[in-house]
Amino acid sequence: MHRHDLALIGFGGVNRALAEIIQTRGEELADDLGFGLRVVAITDLRLGSLMQTGGIDLGAVLALPEGATFAGLPGGAGVPQNDFVIRNTTADIVVEATFTNPVDGEPAVSHVRAALESGKSVTTTNKGPVALAGAELSRIAAEHGVRFEYEGAVMSGTPVLRFASETLKGLRVSGVQGILNGTSNFVLGRMETGMTLAEAVAEAQALGYAEADPTADIEGSDVQLKVVILANEILGAAITTADVRRRGISRVSPEDIAAAAAEGRRWKLIGSATRTPDGEVVATVEPVALPLEHALAGVSGPTNAVSFDTDLLGTVTVSGPGAGRIETAYALLSDIIAVDQHARTLAEAAR
Amino acid sequence: MHRHDLALIGFGGVNRALAEIIQTRGEELADDLGFGLRVVAITDLRLGSLMQTGGIDLGAVLALPEGATFAGLPGGAGVPQNDFVIRNTTADIVVEATFTNPVDGEPAVSHVRAALESGKSVTTTNKGPVALAGAELSRIAAEHGVRFEYEGAVMSGTPVLRFASETLKGLRVSGVQGILNGTSNFVLGRMETGMTLAEAVAEAQALGYAEADPTADIEGSDVQLKVVILANEILGAAITTADVRRRGISRVSPEDIAAAAAEGRRWKLIGSATRTPDGEVVATVEPVALPLEHALAGVSGPTNAVSFDTDLLGTVTVSGPGAGRIETAYALLSDIIAVDQHARTLAEAAR
Repeated sequence: MHRHDLALIGFGGVNRALAEIIQTRGEELADDLGFGLRVVAITDLRLGSLMQTGGIDLGAVLALPEGATFAGLPGGAGVPQNDFVIRNTTADIVVEATFTNPVDGEPAVSHVRAALESGKSVTTTNKGPVALAGAELSRIAAEHGVRFEYEGAVMSGTPVLRFASETLKGLRVSGVQGILNGTSNFVLGRMETGMTLAEAVAEAQALGYAEADPTADIEGSDVQLKVVILANEILGAAITTADVRRRGISRVSPEDIAAAAAEGRRWKLIGSATRTPDGEVVATVEPVALPLEHALAGVSGPTNAVSFDTDLLGTVTVSGPGAGRIETAYALLSDIIAVDQHARTLAEAAR
Repeated sequence: MHRHDLALIGFGGVNRALAEIIQTRGEELADDLGFGLRVVAITDLRLGSLMQTGGIDLGAVLALPEGATFAGLPGGAGVPQNDFVIRNTTADIVVEATFTNPVDGEPAVSHVRAALESGKSVTTTNKGPVALAGAELSRIAAEHGVRFEYEGAVMSGTPVLRFASETLKGLRVSGVQGILNGTSNFVLGRMETGMTLAEAVAEAQALGYAEADPTADIEGSDVQLKVVILANEILGAAITTADVRRRGISRVSPEDIAAAAAEGRRWKLIGSATRTPDGEVVATVEPVALPLEHALAGVSGPTNAVSFDTDLLGTVTVSGPGAGRIETAYALLSDIIAVDQHARTLAEAAR
């Protein structure tokens, strides 16, 4: 059976969940999908690096005791050596799941560039490389005849980019609007029950939805990166974060919440990109008091959603999880499936 | 440029909208999609039949005065001759959009069968043939090496079947639940404002949402057919309408509505199919008082939605229009795009 060899860059929650899926469901998936999956390299800042051209024993990796590095495993070292591994691995697909640096996207941008330049396809769940260097990286992928896939950069495994490209063919999409950050949506929902912003943030932190520093969620910079991706990918824009006017939810007061409720409205942090009649794309992140009948008004708690405004179909909306390690690992799997399909189509065309 | 020739069976609202799309947007679509579209045959119970192997002048057809038949046009006749046209047209795709007979699916089943048997792919928006004879028709399509596509049978152009097949690859779907009838959803929404069922139905009829006889919408038999399609297509079941326990909304009283509202719930007519742990698929249509935080609770008015329960991604939901002549015509266009893609993949494989 046909097989893809993977290199996992970063071995935190998401790539670890992907390894668990391959370990526990790999054979069944191979039957479903018509190809097998094997991990031949893993690197991680804390764990070091591991290369096994014949396939890594994922059971042994997943059973490593807390605090142990890869140094004790065959082919393992206690230092990450990301660039060396990315360039020299026998993997055909590099799975980038480190962390998003919202300023310059590093080190993920360099990881992706190195992988593509060395002729490997890349899947990432990292917003940074896509929002900040997407055009450059897609061009490098095309030059090297490989794929750059990033479904998980917007709404974890919930299909958004592929929803637009695969199921809305033939439609003209004039705008996208979304609830793209689960933490801020959870916080707004709790404020509707009478909590202050600070109380709601504290609860989100206690539940693990919000990080110790919730600024990127609350002030909208997380959504801003996602709006850049949606605008460029779905509306064909070429914007950067500087083009997205941004306001977070910190100025939405309990009084604003109550006033909206009295009018049958709910405050939501909406990321939006719209093509104007003159062809320009206008993108914003801001709190909006939506009427209850709006498609996004009922999206509650940590759920995310994106609405697409189309010419023939009006508005269609996809909602689902916007985070979660298994949900995000599925985004990587869906990208791997897309890489495989593209390779098969090319192989058939060349036959 | 590559081209598909179409035969339109039935020339009511939906196929007329498809003809308008081809007439007004055909060149632009061809640029987008990489293939052209030409209509070479049309039949209609009232208008008669029309065949032009070189392509029908859609402008002339769309400009026909009210009450005129095709008899006055070149290649036209005042009688429909459906079977003759379907078997003898030079079209490679037959577009079936007559009406749904919920008892035996005729005459659409015969139309689809004749087209597939004579080596033409078929797209239909007709629930009847898919729900009542889907397995037989898909088998005939496979035997003749052609496609049978029916995205529009469930939620007009809103992608549901293709959402599952194209964007949820690699997931195990254990259940689907949907709001699959816009009329009953509109009626329930109006009852929440204090109307009786009869008043709400009268308003839906005045707005054109409900037909003169609203029984199929109100009593759930429309949804029942759609649940059969979802269960068989997405869960791999082999059920018939008799296997779907059905209760409509006529027994939901104003008191039930008020009691649900007091508990933070909304009544919705839910079509559902679920795979039980022993592998059986249980399918129902019934009114359910959903909590407001449920993904389907916020789906208002004539909007439809389907939620998919998956193993790795939890619940994902698609919502959008469930009816409308242009929206349904887009379903046909999306099917034609799928037929084209399949043909290209085969052609590439054979090269």
